[in-house]
Amino acid sequence: MSETAAISASELRPLAAATLVNAGARPAHAAATADILVEGDMMGLGTHGVLRLLVYGERLRLGGIKGAAEITIERRAPSLAIVDGDDGLGPAVAMTALEEGFAMVVDTGMAYLGCRRSHHLGALAPYGLKACERGLVLLCGTNASPTIAPWGGREARLANNPLCIAAPCSTPPGPGAPHFLLDMAMSVAARGKIRKARDEGAAIPEGWAVDATGQPTTDPEAALAGFLLPFGGHKGSGLAQAVDVLSGVLSGARFLTDITPWTEFPDQASGTGHFFVLIDPARLLGAEAYGKAMARFREIVQGTPPADARQPVQLPGEREQERRNAALRDGIRLPADLLEKIRALASGGAA
Amino acid sequence: MSETAAISASELRPLAAATLVNAGARPAHAAATADILVEGDMMGLGTHGVLRLLVYGERLRLGGIKGAAEITIERRAPSLAIVDGDDGLGPAVAMTALEEGFAMVVDTGMAYLGCRRSHHLGALAPYGLKACERGLVLLCGTNASPTIAPWGGREARLANNPLCIAAPCSTPPGPGAPHFLLDMAMSVAARGKIRKARDEGAAIPEGWAVDATGQPTTDPEAALAGFLLPFGGHKGSGLAQAVDVLSGVLSGARFLTDITPWTEFPDQASGTGHFFVLIDPARLLGAEAYGKAMARFREIVQGTPPADARQPVQLPGEREQERRNAALRDGIRLPADLLEKIRALASGGAA
Repeated sequence: MSETAAISASELRPLAAATLVNAGARPAHAAATADILVEGDMMGLGTHGVLRLLVYGERLRLGGIKGAAEITIERRAPSLAIVDGDDGLGPAVAMTALEEGFAMVVDTGMAYLGCRRSHHLGALAPYGLKACERGLVLLCGTNASPTIAPWGGREARLANNPLCIAAPCSTPPGPGAPHFLLDMAMSVAARGKIRKARDEGAAIPEGWAVDATGQPTTDPEAALAGFLLPFGGHKGSGLAQAVDVLSGVLSGARFLTDITPWTEFPDQASGTGHFFVLIDPARLLGAEAYGKAMARFREIVQGTPPADARQPVQLPGEREQERRNAALRDGIRLPADLLEKIRALASGGAA
Repeated sequence: MSETAAISASELRPLAAATLVNAGARPAHAAATADILVEGDMMGLGTHGVLRLLVYGERLRLGGIKGAAEITIERRAPSLAIVDGDDGLGPAVAMTALEEGFAMVVDTGMAYLGCRRSHHLGALAPYGLKACERGLVLLCGTNASPTIAPWGGREARLANNPLCIAAPCSTPPGPGAPHFLLDMAMSVAARGKIRKARDEGAAIPEGWAVDATGQPTTDPEAALAGFLLPFGGHKGSGLAQAVDVLSGVLSGARFLTDITPWTEFPDQASGTGHFFVLIDPARLLGAEAYGKAMARFREIVQGTPPADARQPVQLPGEREQERRNAALRDGIRLPADLLEKIRALASGGAA
């Protein structure tokens, strides 16, 4: 375990944003991106936290991510819109979509927004939380460059496309009760965890990945050169494809192998696609009936007799929300060298 | 393997409907239900095919399923509706929702429909296919009575809630190309497969289920008395819960352990919930751009070098659509004794 340092979210956000502005991003795009990455760290999703500032900054400097992007919204039907990211920062594109969705839901009760010409958008859970805080249900997902073979294949043509399904504890959200906040990728384990094992010189468990020839491996280097295994075999593979249809095909973005991998071409736009579906539960059921139903739902899940008496059964995302509350109270713990790099980049120096 | 008999879909549908009318169902509800179950058999999903007529008929006779149900639709917002099934046949409730959705999509480009007071609705893939044949994208799911423990728990409080994500090959659909048709439940294996193993006196593989005390088992009887294991551990468990939120909570239906299990209480209404989300891809992208994108998507997936040279990589649901084409051409093969029972029930006799 390397040395860590604590910093408050309110102190970290402007530092994170400054690193991106210094790399050429519009201040508003930098602020939206900093917010999403800091949310990732607060929820304990460090592989999708401010660590990403280093790559985002490098790609802004190289022109792969366009700092001066003009993000535009086109309404295609009362409940449908396309957001064109103009190859800008992913979280800025995604937040543009989410906020447009908040407005569309007022009219028709629901919305689909597809994002094209975007980039890596951080973790999905922060978007789910923002929807829940508005009292809205969110389904969202993103595509990415391929790391998984479609089931029955032996070549990576599919990404580890995550899916988030979030529902507020009540509407308007009450204090204390956790929101339902599922955020899952389709591989047995995340690629970030394999990179972490490599950096720590550790082996990975069997069943996580295969090497470039399709053989099982516990060597993180070989796994990163090969591809990840989907969970549930054909099920995870099929669901990853479905997320790509919703994120890439329906939005008019790139998809599958047409996405440009940033690891190989950091100076080129990725063409990533995302989707956001919002539903207003208060319009469906009334606020009171919805809040009661979710309270009953929590009661049944959390009241399940646990397999291990010390570990009560939790709702999806409950642990992440507990971590976020702790981070708001005690600050965010980051690797000390990462925080140092961010401070240097924020003040205009090199990483 | 027991003896089988072939019958055409057009001959089987009215027989199937007659068994339900004889058990007290309205003719329109019986016809919708027969159509969905016959579609299940055509796609090779025999556990969700006309085999279910026996249980549906028994429950109609016992009053658990209401033959004279008045299914009603309430529009809650331009893109939101609730369908109240009045405890009628599940496929009749679900088809009412799907057809209302087809109309709603014309106005706003998308729709969410929640069904309450419904029952088992057959397989989801037939609904996905109907949406695809209209050129629409469909996400749908259903809840059911509990068979799975939430992750970390040791009591079945969650059902094996299936999720379907379907996207047409083009819009309007072109001949020949398969639609994208994912239909997956959340357990490693379906409960129907365990019942089949029991009926055949076979053992089940390890990892499918645990017994009533939470211990792994390969005995189908012990598995049916215990509970199914979700695929991907916490991921399958979380996704099954998300489907219940969308199907049960948002529709105002029952959910989790509040659903009445038909196996124990066939004479009582189950209170099952379903959801249908429709999106019009032609409104988003234009019909031509959408068709081209899906053709490219198919080309990339199907062109993946296969792990086994004799088994080309297929799209989700491609095999089921091949089986359906074969059944349309050659007829549906059913166990001979099942077909005999259906003929007897259709002519007003006992099974």
